[in-house]
Amino acid sequence: MRGAVLYAPGDIRVEDRDDPKLIEPTDVILRLAATCVCGSDLWPYRGVEAVEGPTPMGHEYAGVVEEVGPEVQQIRPGQFVVGSFWASDNTCAICRAGYQSSCVQRVLMGTIGTQAELARIPLADGTLVATPDLPPDDLVPSLLAASDVLGTGWFGAVAAEAGPGKTIAVVGDGAVGLLAVLAAKQLGAERIIAMSRHEPRQRLAREYGATDIVTERGDDGVAAVKELTGGLGAHSVVEAVGTRESMRQAIGSTRPGGHVGFVGVAHGVELSVEELFFSAVHLHGGPAPVRRFLPQLVELIWNRRIDPGKVFDLEVPLEQAAQGYQAMDERRAIKTLLTL
Amino acid sequence: MRGAVLYAPGDIRVEDRDDPKLIEPTDVILRLAATCVCGSDLWPYRGVEAVEGPTPMGHEYAGVVEEVGPEVQQIRPGQFVVGSFWASDNTCAICRAGYQSSCVQRVLMGTIGTQAELARIPLADGTLVATPDLPPDDLVPSLLAASDVLGTGWFGAVAAEAGPGKTIAVVGDGAVGLLAVLAAKQLGAERIIAMSRHEPRQRLAREYGATDIVTERGDDGVAAVKELTGGLGAHSVVEAVGTRESMRQAIGSTRPGGHVGFVGVAHGVELSVEELFFSAVHLHGGPAPVRRFLPQLVELIWNRRIDPGKVFDLEVPLEQAAQGYQAMDERRAIKTLLTL
Repeated sequence: MRGAVLYAPGDIRVEDRDDPKLIEPTDVILRLAATCVCGSDLWPYRGVEAVEGPTPMGHEYAGVVEEVGPEVQQIRPGQFVVGSFWASDNTCAICRAGYQSSCVQRVLMGTIGTQAELARIPLADGTLVATPDLPPDDLVPSLLAASDVLGTGWFGAVAAEAGPGKTIAVVGDGAVGLLAVLAAKQLGAERIIAMSRHEPRQRLAREYGATDIVTERGDDGVAAVKELTGGLGAHSVVEAVGTRESMRQAIGSTRPGGHVGFVGVAHGVELSVEELFFSAVHLHGGPAPVRRFLPQLVELIWNRRIDPGKVFDLEVPLEQAAQGYQAMDERRAIKTLLTL
Repeated sequence: MRGAVLYAPGDIRVEDRDDPKLIEPTDVILRLAATCVCGSDLWPYRGVEAVEGPTPMGHEYAGVVEEVGPEVQQIRPGQFVVGSFWASDNTCAICRAGYQSSCVQRVLMGTIGTQAELARIPLADGTLVATPDLPPDDLVPSLLAASDVLGTGWFGAVAAEAGPGKTIAVVGDGAVGLLAVLAAKQLGAERIIAMSRHEPRQRLAREYGATDIVTERGDDGVAAVKELTGGLGAHSVVEAVGTRESMRQAIGSTRPGGHVGFVGVAHGVELSVEELFFSAVHLHGGPAPVRRFLPQLVELIWNRRIDPGKVFDLEVPLEQAAQGYQAMDERRAIKTLLTL
């Protein structure tokens, strides 16, 4: 099969890889309907994360089941399925509490590499959610988005406790931030402040439900959110960047007793505990337990209630993955869909 | 009046201070029934916090109202009252949400200095809670404890979401940690793990409801808690120390999706956001909004359902405050009551 492999920072190639085989009896083999590039794929691409030899890339996936292991009971060949970037058994105490991304048996899909024609999915019964039927082509991007960016943005909004009567601010206008806006709207938030200085992203944020746009960053961004909220700060803030500045901006924009949901993955960032202490906010985040939300997200997409696939503003064939990475790296694209 | 004043690290003196006067129309003047030394008073005493000239000390208080300002409506002369170490209006949006320690009008009582015979209490109607009657002498220590250490330990347990069916661990065996054990028990926690290596404190922890004692610290302490919880970690952990090690120990001892309540005040401590991210815990803390809990705490004490006053294992007259500070500094006393 064909698959994307990162050789060194900036050097992504699509080449022949061995077809995946069933390894564990709970595995399935999936034929991908489409795949995509994640913001987090840019870390090794940019050299922020070390690349140790050729590395298969990608952890987002949706497609049709080709083959199932002997112990797979729920998932059947021919079904169209979506799963999270963490495979999980969905039965352990941690999964049952809704934290499938910390499942005691979890497997990180990034170690498998789903920017390819086929992928092995571990713990298939726990990991995968099937659609009611084979989806029409135009729903595939949205279903693929549910695999990570939608689920991550949704978790950010849930972790920030967005809901009726609440004002929520979103720090970060990447795909995750934009989909946190969508999630906040679905969760019933009254007012949604998107923090963005990029006109096309502001437009999509408004389309997804943002009521206010703040273009300032850092302390100025905090001041702008406070001005919009009677000096108190937002009830809920989603942090979807992962830098020290964005964390401080998110915490500073939240009123005492409010909630920060942080889903930006930080690299080497430290936070002052004193600053956090005196902010009196709730802080919750981590690798999104997308599996918790997948049944609901698939249903919303299937019934065309939400359209998260709009974050894909560039579409190229898998063979041209290098172009897709480059466009995201240069912020010319929000998110790249790789067609198969 | 007489009052304790810190001149320099280690140099605490009791001397004549001016009697406090009503300044704002919402003030009252309180005659203290007793006062005490807080763990946080040890920071300037130890020179961790700078001492800039002679500083009146103390922020915990309970006593009888002597004089009320013209705009005080609820609180009357002759009432016995308890208040938090933050004065608050209890009417602003932040107070109404239960975060009175971040009230938009808040006044830190530490700037007033309650290790004295008399004290001015700002925002009296919002700040103070009256007992049903004048208390018998033996209830005074427990009522005084409600002013800070009990309320802070209680907030830690609430922030950690201690409750029925939950296993809670408490990092720190000072007065706040011990009272977090008491709070967890009252909140219905099933299993309470106290982390302590001091035999007298372990004893009080068991008396307050601890079911298990862990003497190890750091990574060994984390491993011990995991061993007691099927490898998963506690559902809830209270951090009541305020060092980097204790924060890491608290986060590491919590299962993914669990809750850390942190009430130890950190000085210059930084936390790795990456570590926090992958722990997938909820983190909430800050200066305890004691006022939120005071009516309930006063009732529990009044009805002799709890006995938080036991944390006072040293009692000296105010005039000998220096001895009281020294005993706590050397960890010979958990907490010092200063009698009047």
